[in-house]
Amino acid sequence: METKLNSIDLKNIQIDDAFWNTYINLVDEVILPFQWDLMNDMVEGAEKSHCIQNFKIACGLEKGYHQGMVFQDTDLAKWLEAAAYSLAKKKNPKLEELADYAIDLIVSSQCEDGYINTYYTITGKPRWSNLLEGHELYTAGHMIEAAVAYYKATGKTKFLNAMRRFADCIYKTFGKEDGKIHGYPGHPEVELALVKLYHATGEKKYLELARYFVEERGSLPCYFLGEESVKTGNFIFPEFKYFGLDYTQCHVPIREQKTAEGHAVRAVYLYSAMADLAYEYNDEELLKQCDELWENITEKRMYITGSIGSAAHGERFTADYDLPNNTNYSESCATIGLAMFSNRMFQITKDRKYADVVELALYNTLLAGVALDGRHFFYVNPLETVPEIAAKNPTMRHIKTARQPWFGVACCPPNIARTLASLGNYIYAADKNCIFINLFIANEAKIPLESGIVKLKICSQYPSNGSVKISVSPQSSLRDFSIVVRIPEFSKKFSVKINGNPAECSLEKGYAYMKRKWKENDEIELVLDTSFRFVRCNPKVRGNIGKVCLMKGPWVYCMEEIDNGKYLSSIRIDASKGAKETIDPSLPKGIACAVLQGEKIDYSLVCEKLYSEDKLPYKTGEFKAIPYCLWNNRGEGEMLVWISEKQY
Amino acid sequence: METKLNSIDLKNIQIDDAFWNTYINLVDEVILPFQWDLMNDMVEGAEKSHCIQNFKIACGLEKGYHQGMVFQDTDLAKWLEAAAYSLAKKKNPKLEELADYAIDLIVSSQCEDGYINTYYTITGKPRWSNLLEGHELYTAGHMIEAAVAYYKATGKTKFLNAMRRFADCIYKTFGKEDGKIHGYPGHPEVELALVKLYHATGEKKYLELARYFVEERGSLPCYFLGEESVKTGNFIFPEFKYFGLDYTQCHVPIREQKTAEGHAVRAVYLYSAMADLAYEYNDEELLKQCDELWENITEKRMYITGSIGSAAHGERFTADYDLPNNTNYSESCATIGLAMFSNRMFQITKDRKYADVVELALYNTLLAGVALDGRHFFYVNPLETVPEIAAKNPTMRHIKTARQPWFGVACCPPNIARTLASLGNYIYAADKNCIFINLFIANEAKIPLESGIVKLKICSQYPSNGSVKISVSPQSSLRDFSIVVRIPEFSKKFSVKINGNPAECSLEKGYAYMKRKWKENDEIELVLDTSFRFVRCNPKVRGNIGKVCLMKGPWVYCMEEIDNGKYLSSIRIDASKGAKETIDPSLPKGIACAVLQGEKIDYSLVCEKLYSEDKLPYKTGEFKAIPYCLWNNRGEGEMLVWISEKQY
Repeated sequence: METKLNSIDLKNIQIDDAFWNTYINLVDEVILPFQWDLMNDMVEGAEKSHCIQNFKIACGLEKGYHQGMVFQDTDLAKWLEAAAYSLAKKKNPKLEELADYAIDLIVSSQCEDGYINTYYTITGKPRWSNLLEGHELYTAGHMIEAAVAYYKATGKTKFLNAMRRFADCIYKTFGKEDGKIHGYPGHPEVELALVKLYHATGEKKYLELARYFVEERGSLPCYFLGEESVKTGNFIFPEFKYFGLDYTQCHVPIREQKTAEGHAVRAVYLYSAMADLAYEYNDEELLKQCDELWENITEKRMYITGSIGSAAHGERFTADYDLPNNTNYSESCATIGLAMFSNRMFQITKDRKYADVVELALYNTLLAGVALDGRHFFYVNPLETVPEIAAKNPTMRHIKTARQPWFGVACCPPNIARTLASLGNYIYAADKNCIFINLFIANEAKIPLESGIVKLKICSQYPSNGSVKISVSPQSSLRDFSIVVRIPEFSKKFSVKINGNPAECSLEKGYAYMKRKWKENDEIELVLDTSFRFVRCNPKVRGNIGKVCLMKGPWVYCMEEIDNGKYLSSIRIDASKGAKETIDPSLPKGIACAVLQGEKIDYSLVCEKLYSEDKLPYKTGEFKAIPYCLWNNRGEGEMLVWISEKQY
Repeated sequence: METKLNSIDLKNIQIDDAFWNTYINLVDEVILPFQWDLMNDMVEGAEKSHCIQNFKIACGLEKGYHQGMVFQDTDLAKWLEAAAYSLAKKKNPKLEELADYAIDLIVSSQCEDGYINTYYTITGKPRWSNLLEGHELYTAGHMIEAAVAYYKATGKTKFLNAMRRFADCIYKTFGKEDGKIHGYPGHPEVELALVKLYHATGEKKYLELARYFVEERGSLPCYFLGEESVKTGNFIFPEFKYFGLDYTQCHVPIREQKTAEGHAVRAVYLYSAMADLAYEYNDEELLKQCDELWENITEKRMYITGSIGSAAHGERFTADYDLPNNTNYSESCATIGLAMFSNRMFQITKDRKYADVVELALYNTLLAGVALDGRHFFYVNPLETVPEIAAKNPTMRHIKTARQPWFGVACCPPNIARTLASLGNYIYAADKNCIFINLFIANEAKIPLESGIVKLKICSQYPSNGSVKISVSPQSSLRDFSIVVRIPEFSKKFSVKINGNPAECSLEKGYAYMKRKWKENDEIELVLDTSFRFVRCNPKVRGNIGKVCLMKGPWVYCMEEIDNGKYLSSIRIDASKGAKETIDPSLPKGIACAVLQGEKIDYSLVCEKLYSEDKLPYKTGEFKAIPYCLWNNRGEGEMLVWISEKQY
């Protein structure tokens, strides 16, 4: 296996992008402070979180009982992880103080043997007694990820050391050996975290433990079937009784899993760890399996918005080509997990296809998850909604047609926050002599190569505009190295110039490789084709037959009621007439909106009857579409991604 | 209010119709014997019913505990009702013996004060303590309906008298008066049964009790909110905690309910009783309200197949124009209830619109509920299915893509049986001097009018053929009387001849009235237009935009995979080319199938990618459609009612 690419330390990347700044600034300015208040039960009108209170009770500072979900601790973990990424990029003593305070609380709640979990500590329920639902290892995973991030950002070791002790405790508890539990978590997450901990500490046993958890999954008889909750039917989450073993990806041994099944977040967290392990153990077979799973997802089970999970019940994958637009789950967290999995596969294989999906996920579903005010979030991301029907048809009771302030199960908002805060991980990757540029987000970065540091500056208004300028300023000591630029698959043509002259570049797996002796102030000018395009869906997806989706670069577009009136489904677009660019003054500056030509049913001429032989009267018109990520920022109303097309 | 029309005693109607015989004979030959065995737990491989066993335990013949649903007794009640209708038409000593045995069991299980219910009797749980879920009154209603039917069929009074004692017990327990319970059933049914009991016995207090139950519903504060199960959240049916008060039609006072809400079966059973009471109490306002509810259902919330209930969760009505085709509930029992409600409204108003819906319901969803073998049933009736997706997407977990042998909750099969067994009720209605003919099912009937009996004989192959012959043979004593024939709304033209000459007839509310001095062997020849027609849906129903439905008379057609290959959604029909009649040798004789012109995506030429800019390759072809009621009788596969249409 080739050497894997590495992420770049976030402290070396300063993003300054007109489009992304809106969101990234929200993390520091709104989301982190707001979430802190939420976790401290200081937001009037919001449901109480009890998250910080649970830690105070667990370490004896307060009296009381555990409240919130069994995995409530992860709110704080994800908050700390996002805070760490934020601190890596910019000093913020007030935030660091809060973080240190929170870390003190966590460490104070740690048991003598290293164990941390407020639910089990406070309730006194037997640890590890319900791996299927108890979320102890899932929680541990998020804690470990946060600790590694905080250590990298601040150099402080308290949290990391505490988490090493916790990981040691887990290592002593789980494994092949007699006397250890031969189990694994109902919700994967600790596996990928342990790989991170291994890299942060150099301690190989954490990697081994990750491998153990992954390899043990699906071994027969299924571990969970022996747990009390399953045997008695007395579940923490009553709906578990309706979920099969595939829900937790343990229906068959892990090596036999070739299609993405079950709960989508669990699946992609697991696959992320599998990709990590494939690389770490030079396991070509496992890597091939990861690719098969990835192909199954992205070519058969992924929405065009980069979201996954076709059904609400089980928040899960269903069947190939089953992608209903208005009853789907498409959880924000699952999209984040898909980006994590895809980014790992990219770093190992240097294949564009993975990075294309990362970009799709980030530019559409990730951002759709958060409102421009940073205070409202989508958990579920439909591709088509009609508010008055979603409100009254319980088949869609999971669908919200306006972003909600926060949620009882608050996994998505902090997950979105940590992803936005660590966006740099998706822009660049590098090895000794090679810098990969995946996302065309304006930023300045310092990238350490073997023989010295390269300063890069990307200027762009991508994807509204396909022209991207990259200034390169290597340290003088630097030898030849490569700058490698992703040419997204959607870009039917492209050009690359260096200092105004056509660049010599080789193309491999969708990347343009430019190897040379770079000099101070070299400038790369990449022009990608981000013109509007109409995309059609494989007609095995029955619900999208006869429909088109407008895209521009990675952006998926949607129509909203505010621009086009009610009954968006009655619009049919003439794709042959193309799309004209326009702007919307109520959306952030620089966002390319689109005007489409077509026709719409004239409801004023339609007879009242429910069923009749009448033909329907259409009226030609112009219709407007905006990037999907920005829907529901101008009020509540119908929204539609897949638009009916005039037949050709 | 005009005098209401009456149903004709079933013993006076002998159906002999090529199409309907198949189904009606199943009742006697297959369904009743099979259900008897099921209720006696004698069917190998079937889930145990415990229904008869519960009665044996309740009357002390056996020891044991209650098993099955709280409303398990209604299986026997509906079986007895169907058996009674069957016995009314044809002597069957063996069946009558079983029925008498069952009635003895029921009567032996009756408590001293008249109360009957095996669940409450065996478990000793306090009676009437859970009106919301306990189904005591619902069960009582089905028992009363059965007893009235059995009395009418056989003249035997044992069952009827027992049910009078039960009704007396209920009368003593419920009512406005102090000391009585001011409640009403969670599942309406007893109301319409009490009206039947009133007519069978002449005892007005049963009518008053029905009125009390209806009028009390929805009064504030809601009775159910005071019940233990609601207060403690300790429900018999855990899902009740998610259902609003509208689920049981008690969200607002009954008189304020103008849209059909909640559980569809409950709703139409309730509205049936409301229609009865509107007539009995000459309550024009209530009748108008019934019509509003009926209009709301049929013009905004009813599938073209005559089914209702757009969502599985709550098996309920949702919103106007919300009619999803592949996640709907459309329970067979709800369609039966809609036919009951509509038939009552017709009998009161003599308006064709109601009878048109009865016909639609019977010819489509009722029959779709039962396989041609009489041993397999649909509970839920989708308008579009893809078996491999329905099997894997839990949003459709209520949808079966092949009829099932019987169900744990076995309400539908016996309900279908009692409806088929009493089909004559929907063919004719009459008052003193007027015979209404609603359904063109071949039969011979003796209809008693004020001045004597009229023999009628209907010959037809309707709706395969629109020509209907009606022979009239009045007793010589008869004065002028009217024969009134429904001219269905779909029939754009029609002709009526008497003895070969154009008939003088007046048209009123969709009925052709022929009043004359009828003579022996007069023959009416009615020709209706049952040519194929393409029906479109009001485009407020978003999912049906751009689609057509083929119909012929009341028959809705569907396409099946066995005839048209996979991916039925990729077919688009050229409606302007019409439909050609054909037959299918594997379906019952005389069934008109259809050949349609159009085009279909050629999947062999489609690229593998999930998303691409490629246009889709269509290939012209001929496609076959069969009556919806017959789907899934030739193996499992895709099925589709609303077909994409070539744009015009």
